[in-house]
Amino acid sequence: MTDQPAYDEPARPQVHFSPPKGFMNDPNGLVYSNGTWHMYFQYNPNCTVAGGPQWGHATSQDLIHWQNHGLAIESENADESIYSGSAVVDKENTSGLFDDSIGPEERIVAIYTLHSPKKQVQCVAFSRDGGYTFASYQQNPVIDIGSKDFRDPKVFFHKPSSTWIMAVALSHEYQILFYGSKDLLHWTELSRFQAGLVGYQYEVPDLVEMPIEGTTATKWVLFVSINPGAPLGGSMTQYFIGEFDGEKFVPDDYIVRFADYGKDWYASQTWSNTPGNEVIGLAWASNWQYTNEVPTYPWRGCMSVARRMLLRKVRYNREYFGYSLAQFPVNIEQARNLNNAVTADRVDSSTGMKLRTKSGAAELLFYVSGVSLGNRFTDSSTILIELASKSARISIGLRVFETGAHVWLNRKADAAGWHHPLYNDNLSALVIPENMQCPVYKIHGIIDRGLTEIYVNDVVAFTNIHVLPDDEFADTVRVKLDDNLRITQASLYELHSAWTK
Amino acid sequence: MTDQPAYDEPARPQVHFSPPKGFMNDPNGLVYSNGTWHMYFQYNPNCTVAGGPQWGHATSQDLIHWQNHGLAIESENADESIYSGSAVVDKENTSGLFDDSIGPEERIVAIYTLHSPKKQVQCVAFSRDGGYTFASYQQNPVIDIGSKDFRDPKVFFHKPSSTWIMAVALSHEYQILFYGSKDLLHWTELSRFQAGLVGYQYEVPDLVEMPIEGTTATKWVLFVSINPGAPLGGSMTQYFIGEFDGEKFVPDDYIVRFADYGKDWYASQTWSNTPGNEVIGLAWASNWQYTNEVPTYPWRGCMSVARRMLLRKVRYNREYFGYSLAQFPVNIEQARNLNNAVTADRVDSSTGMKLRTKSGAAELLFYVSGVSLGNRFTDSSTILIELASKSARISIGLRVFETGAHVWLNRKADAAGWHHPLYNDNLSALVIPENMQCPVYKIHGIIDRGLTEIYVNDVVAFTNIHVLPDDEFADTVRVKLDDNLRITQASLYELHSAWTK
Repeated sequence: MTDQPAYDEPARPQVHFSPPKGFMNDPNGLVYSNGTWHMYFQYNPNCTVAGGPQWGHATSQDLIHWQNHGLAIESENADESIYSGSAVVDKENTSGLFDDSIGPEERIVAIYTLHSPKKQVQCVAFSRDGGYTFASYQQNPVIDIGSKDFRDPKVFFHKPSSTWIMAVALSHEYQILFYGSKDLLHWTELSRFQAGLVGYQYEVPDLVEMPIEGTTATKWVLFVSINPGAPLGGSMTQYFIGEFDGEKFVPDDYIVRFADYGKDWYASQTWSNTPGNEVIGLAWASNWQYTNEVPTYPWRGCMSVARRMLLRKVRYNREYFGYSLAQFPVNIEQARNLNNAVTADRVDSSTGMKLRTKSGAAELLFYVSGVSLGNRFTDSSTILIELASKSARISIGLRVFETGAHVWLNRKADAAGWHHPLYNDNLSALVIPENMQCPVYKIHGIIDRGLTEIYVNDVVAFTNIHVLPDDEFADTVRVKLDDNLRITQASLYELHSAWTK
Repeated sequence: MTDQPAYDEPARPQVHFSPPKGFMNDPNGLVYSNGTWHMYFQYNPNCTVAGGPQWGHATSQDLIHWQNHGLAIESENADESIYSGSAVVDKENTSGLFDDSIGPEERIVAIYTLHSPKKQVQCVAFSRDGGYTFASYQQNPVIDIGSKDFRDPKVFFHKPSSTWIMAVALSHEYQILFYGSKDLLHWTELSRFQAGLVGYQYEVPDLVEMPIEGTTATKWVLFVSINPGAPLGGSMTQYFIGEFDGEKFVPDDYIVRFADYGKDWYASQTWSNTPGNEVIGLAWASNWQYTNEVPTYPWRGCMSVARRMLLRKVRYNREYFGYSLAQFPVNIEQARNLNNAVTADRVDSSTGMKLRTKSGAAELLFYVSGVSLGNRFTDSSTILIELASKSARISIGLRVFETGAHVWLNRKADAAGWHHPLYNDNLSALVIPENMQCPVYKIHGIIDRGLTEIYVNDVVAFTNIHVLPDDEFADTVRVKLDDNLRITQASLYELHSAWTK
């Protein structure tokens, strides 16, 4: 296992995973096995710019604390790279790659894209030690359609048809292809899907059977990432809700939904083989528009927190109710420093809230209510969350209007002297409250040095990196509010660094 | 006819339509008749904040110079408003609302939404003088489904079925409803359509038979606007490409396309009865997120320039070619001041380009080529267009990378002391060149005091307002470029104010 560095650089997230050094992007091969959460990832350990990715590897027992394991899958030829893919536990040895000496939970099969200048093909690697070391399948590739842009296989076991199903992007045709296999090695195309925002290309699909909150029913969710050409610029992940019968994904509608409304949540993937079949996933928290130029050193790139996901029936407007992804940070409460926390049943404009942290990581959780507005066009009320460092400030606000609210972020990097034409200073997303007469907004935030995730009512996730001066992180969190708003059940916690030994 | 004010306020666009005073939003009732382009619009003449809209009216002979005519359609009751809608020339008197004393081109029928607190219904008003004065149809409403959110009828005559077709939004159900009528007065529902981005609600649909460039063929394009909840925040217009058989719009695919990639181009509408059936349309150049607070006085709101539209088969990426809306400003050359212009066959980094204007309005047109890049992740080349006023600056850039370019805008309003949390300082859109080996980018810009429209390769339109200090407009346009780029066939023109007598 490789050394664990201090992880204390000012921009270094404390409760989010990032590699010790080098450049990281997409999460790969997310698989739970024997009590351990494995995460592989697109990794260039040699420098802080993308290029020639291999699979890095880290593990966690709680999805908060991570241990680095260096490279897990490396390409054999200099002009080849190990692009994104997934991993499963082949408990029944359907692949025949294991024998009885290998415990069922140790039988890990990774399915990834082998990239070369000529083409992209799908390959298999397998691990007989539960995911720590891999060998290449001798008859690779397992799928080769002669395409240069055919990648990011995500595989899961579909019980009703006893078949392994792969979702994979025929990127430049804007098609998600579904393949079926009995052994993870021989694959047959089943169907294709296309819809929504397309940008320059499709990437990293993920088809997931998603629980519907409060029921025993499920729906299928298909995640499709695009880059570049997202509406906000660069990279984003959309999803579709529908049914999957083992052959074909049929969406309930052709509505395009956003998995995250921020600028930095891309190439999401969910874990396979999770306890209780919970859906837990995360994404790379960056954007190809500027990821290679963001001023962090000696690493670039980090993951969002792991999120438990489900579908919730929510209000879209005065009359329409539909499903939406609801997302919940997993185990973040384990990182709370209860000795440095502020809680209050009620907060008003005269008091506000304030917390100073040593770690630069904080969690906030509260409910906003009490909105009473006049003219719907000009009057609005604001909750302001300020993240202050010595010389700079990031602002997050909720601008409440008659029928909803805009959650916004101002992450101007002027104080850091860092400018990038494609790094949007201001971003916003719409939130519709469940009760339009007495709106309540639940705000759950994880503020973590160079990265902030905000969840409003669990259904609007808003993840954005930010850039502060080199030697600073925001150690002070302030919450301010207008007279006609109130905050209830408020908590503001320092979060312990997950990297401190 | 109402007085024509000076139209010389520093933020006042000179070649774009804006009302003399009051608040304007959606274009309505766009109809060409007898050599005159009529434009009605959502209008509150009483103050610079939206509320209780009626139909304002302006006319033009060339779509550049406009004459104001005050209010054309007013509501009869204080709690009712005249919401958006369209107008047609009922040459054949299908409605029976006219008689032989009225020339065929004078027979104007407007179909609009009557909004009241109880519900929204579709109504008819008719003009026997070619669109200057209107009378209400006595049997109004012509469609009433008891909905509170059912609006923005756009009507056209479908020749193959000899039927008037209406597209109208059942806003909160995210459905575009199609109705048919033989007489503009009795309507039957034909079909419904739903897809794409939905935001809070659907508004202002427009179904148009669109010529395919270089052919005699056509396709049907359905425009659907959403607000709030656009990906960039607030308001935007998406479109779908497909076929319409007189009853049902069937999209060729469920790809979501953007009519304009900027933040300020909403509620577009196309003219009916145009010469040669050309498709010419425009949109409101603002965004509901901040339109009521933008610092202009004594008016708020302006229109984009009129654009000729068609479909062009374009490259989406290395392998995929598909249709895209191509848009061309109409008659803008008529506003050029040829005595204050800069033209050059070739411009390089040592010279750049510069023009100083008196009007604060300018047009630029050039081609960028000569890109040669190294590492695709970090190297890029930039064209920079600076709009400078006395104390402030707006920057527009093209950041060219290996497979395409991001056109970006920095419209920071700091110098104006104006801040709005939902007014994005930085925006960008992706452009893919037709020839990826030798990329060429055509840049066509209309810079007009408080508003800039940029068209890249005709297919990426990028329209954004901007805010400069109260007493300033950008009178200087500078074009700068990197060493490894070159500009050819360059023109930079001052534009005459269309409002000067």
